Amino acid sequence: MTRTVIESASKTVVIGFDEPFCVIGERINPTGRKKLAAELEAGDFSTVEKDALEQVLCGATVLDVNSGAVFTNKMADDPRYADNNFVEPPLMTALIKRVQAVVDVPLCIDSSVPGALEAGLQAANGRPLLNSVTGEEERLELVLPLVRKYNVPVVAISNDDTGISPDPDVRFAVAKKIVERAADFGIPAHDIVVDPLVMPIGAMATAGQQVFTLVRRLRQELGVNTTCGASNISFGLPNRHGVNAAFLPMAIGAGMTSAIMNPVRAQEMEAIRAANMLMNHDANGGEWIRLARVLEAMKDGTSFADASRGAAQATSGRRGGRRARA
Amino acid sequence: MTRTVIESASKTVVIGFDEPFCVIGERINPTGRKKLAAELEAGDFSTVEKDALEQVLCGATVLDVNSGAVFTNKMADDPRYADNNFVEPPLMTALIKRVQAVVDVPLCIDSSVPGALEAGLQAANGRPLLNSVTGEEERLELVLPLVRKYNVPVVAISNDDTGISPDPDVRFAVAKKIVERAADFGIPAHDIVVDPLVMPIGAMATAGQQVFTLVRRLRQELGVNTTCGASNISFGLPNRHGVNAAFLPMAIGAGMTSAIMNPVRAQEMEAIRAANMLMNHDANGGEWIRLARVLEAMKDGTSFADASRGAAQATSGRRGGRRARA
Repeated sequence: MTRTVIESASKTVVIGFDEPFCVIGERINPTGRKKLAAELEAGDFSTVEKDALEQVLCGATVLDVNSGAVFTNKMADDPRYADNNFVEPPLMTALIKRVQAVVDVPLCIDSSVPGALEAGLQAANGRPLLNSVTGEEERLELVLPLVRKYNVPVVAISNDDTGISPDPDVRFAVAKKIVERAADFGIPAHDIVVDPLVMPIGAMATAGQQVFTLVRRLRQELGVNTTCGASNISFGLPNRHGVNAAFLPMAIGAGMTSAIMNPVRAQEMEAIRAANMLMNHDANGGEWIRLARVLEAMKDGTSFADASRGAAQATSGRRGGRRARA
Repeated sequence: MTRTVIESASKTVVIGFDEPFCVIGERINPTGRKKLAAELEAGDFSTVEKDALEQVLCGATVLDVNSGAVFTNKMADDPRYADNNFVEPPLMTALIKRVQAVVDVPLCIDSSVPGALEAGLQAANGRPLLNSVTGEEERLELVLPLVRKYNVPVVAISNDDTGISPDPDVRFAVAKKIVERAADFGIPAHDIVVDPLVMPIGAMATAGQQVFTLVRRLRQELGVNTTCGASNISFGLPNRHGVNAAFLPMAIGAGMTSAIMNPVRAQEMEAIRAANMLMNHDANGGEWIRLARVLEAMKDGTSFADASRGAAQATSGRRGGRRARA
């Protein structure tokens, strides 16, 4: 069975057909978060640290770290800041050091800038996941050597130099090309996690079926693990969390093995925990029962993150108590 | 494509591979509802009428009518009431007449007593669904002639004279036997809706995967529609609605086309509406958008049934307005 092994200094996470769904926390990403970008420009990493802690408490087992910030003030003073090849590598290094100082989960190094990817690979402990390569020729030639050099797994996004095809067969062909090209570099299929690209269901009525079919094919024909930006599916619709919370179990049922998503949302995490149990990836329902307690604690208005923290503290408190009596 | 056609006097519902998931409301069932059984014994049908209206408002397009009541007081006076062959046929007739007086959806006639099934077939308008035949020899010989005589579709439950097998291959074989035996009676596969039997995941960790695999096989190999008692999956677990709300989209993704369930629960109906949209069975997301408004109206504590009623009244009010201006 396909197993993609990701490691921090102390923890191993396996993305695999026989594993619980891997939740990769998406929050540490200044793209589209202007306030976070401004904080990072000012050297303030407090939100990053808070997001790292909360995402792990809520159930992320891997954290995505994206360095795609635009530093508008610095840009006005120094034109070099207009170039992300200048901004991102040192920012990625700083982000990873801060995140690793507060949590011990493996990381997913996320940038469109190859220099930032390499800076991340140098800063990260263990065996991080690299995010990402695409079917674009230039990107293949820049990223696959890094994957090979650092012996890490990589997210492969199924677009190429012609863009994102609305035709799922074309997206499958792009994924196949990436897997084959990686093989030329000596990179095995089990170190490639394909993102088949999730379109908004509000714009393309077949978007859900496309993903379910693609995931089955990617798994059966290429033997690869899969991931996606799960919340894309609900873009533009009312009650987005309800759409996401049905999409995730359906994708898991079709064979999807991970997603890059916001784990600080109870409705989506409830759906994933239930789906894990229904796929027989939650021995004795232990994770489900723990989550049910957290959801119960939310009934007085407590947030999911706070209720998750409370549950974690209660558990470590009980453990401490046992140790004290021993 | 397989289409199972069910009709009331004025409405047609199609269970099918290319149709929205068919929600069969389970509430009109005195089995395990002592208060309802006592009301029926006293000739009080007010709860039945309320349940019929609420289930349709909340999204059931077919209503199950089960006559399995035990009339304990009458039994004390008249020993004939100890026999369900005596109690159920007239009760089924009365239930169906009351339900048909308040709602116009097709019905699912549900009894273990053949006489009650035939009474229901005589009382029901249109083309009801018969619930059920099993692989038990006696049941096959009693129920299939009724199915043939009244030309109605039938629910086929995959247990036989040896009971319910924990082995999904045996349950598949039972379903196949029923389909073949029905063919001997001239009953086509598209008039058989197979219930592959859902085990509690808390008792059998593979219960979810069994159902998903069975549904795919039943659809691909026998070409039949499928149904289930959906809430069985979560029996004995905390936060059951969360389990059901992940199970239903996963079952729909695997190809399940209907369920006998409680539609007066927002979490499950939200999951089904989202799954319909994700299967491209909700043109322009119209049903999803309507549901999102109902869920929004529930934020002040209004029940799902009341919010659904409010939405229906607002719609008919607008329609009335248009008619008045025309």
